[in-house]
Amino acid sequence: MTKGEETRQRIVAEAAKLFNQHGFEGGSMSELMEATGLEKGGIYRHFSSKEELAAEAFDYAWGMALDARMRDLDSIPDSVDRLKQFVRNFIDRRPSVPGGCPLLNTAIDADDGNPVLRDRARRALQGWRQRLTDVIAEGIKRKEIKRDVDSRNLSTLIISSLEGALMMSRLERTNDALLAVQSYLEDYLETAVRRPK
Amino acid sequence: MTKGEETRQRIVAEAAKLFNQHGFEGGSMSELMEATGLEKGGIYRHFSSKEELAAEAFDYAWGMALDARMRDLDSIPDSVDRLKQFVRNFIDRRPSVPGGCPLLNTAIDADDGNPVLRDRARRALQGWRQRLTDVIAEGIKRKEIKRDVDSRNLSTLIISSLEGALMMSRLERTNDALLAVQSYLEDYLETAVRRPK
Repeated sequence: MTKGEETRQRIVAEAAKLFNQHGFEGGSMSELMEATGLEKGGIYRHFSSKEELAAEAFDYAWGMALDARMRDLDSIPDSVDRLKQFVRNFIDRRPSVPGGCPLLNTAIDADDGNPVLRDRARRALQGWRQRLTDVIAEGIKRKEIKRDVDSRNLSTLIISSLEGALMMSRLERTNDALLAVQSYLEDYLETAVRRPK
Repeated sequence: MTKGEETRQRIVAEAAKLFNQHGFEGGSMSELMEATGLEKGGIYRHFSSKEELAAEAFDYAWGMALDARMRDLDSIPDSVDRLKQFVRNFIDRRPSVPGGCPLLNTAIDADDGNPVLRDRARRALQGWRQRLTDVIAEGIKRKEIKRDVDSRNLSTLIISSLEGALMMSRLERTNDALLAVQSYLEDYLETAVRRPK
């Protein structure tokens, strides 16, 4: 990596922290200058606009979050156990970028505004749900999951209940909501999703 | 209402629209001046700070949302049917303040920042969950709901899955996620919550 690329990466990582905690409007360039130790010109040499930087920062933060949430799934043979591990990952393996879920934050931040950020978040959601949908579809094919389970709707249920519980847990600063949802999802996966042998 | 009170109310209503769509940082005073037709001094005559105004705007927007979501519940005798109507209200009766759920927006906006707004959102969540918890507890007492249902955890599941699905639906600009969660919740309420006669 050249020195320029290194600097660019450092700016993206600091911007990810800033925007994920304070949003696109709330994250100021002066805070980013302070965090990176760069002048405004030193930042804008690498990015054409605050929007371009925020979009790259989102991709960076989302990559970290997705990696933490999907970790170890491939090594688990049974697909229902994979889904349960995914739920555990979501709760236990908090992403390294502070501020909560980048997808939730950016979705709420951008749903009435910034179309570039909104589009990134929309595509992130699409890709994430597709990965869960694939796990479920494979489980149906392997006869681990009941045939009548709708793979897309089940992914939606898992994602929505966890993201909603994350909002509640972050607001209340306790894990109660996440643990309540985990307990429901685990029970649901065992009783309504897993195909009996 | 005096003319001053009327003006104050008009500012709060416009601020609610602005902040609910663009957040506390993203909603600028110059936009509010334009929307209300008032000078900055005319606004700050009624509020000591942007924060105070935003807190009142949140209470206003949340009052509208809660009213839409809890509407008609008291006229439904059976408590499981009440919960199902609540889910329908959440999806069909969108609050009159544009920008999505004020609680979700403010929670995400303020969880790493503004403590006054965060506290308002926290209390709003608490009150809302308590109202659902009361419906469930009453249903257990009236033998309409199974005795082993945890009323607080069930409220958490309903709120988190609907709020998460709202985030997805607003991002994707389709109702798919909300309808998937509604279908799950209705099924769950009938099979796992309702006490068989």
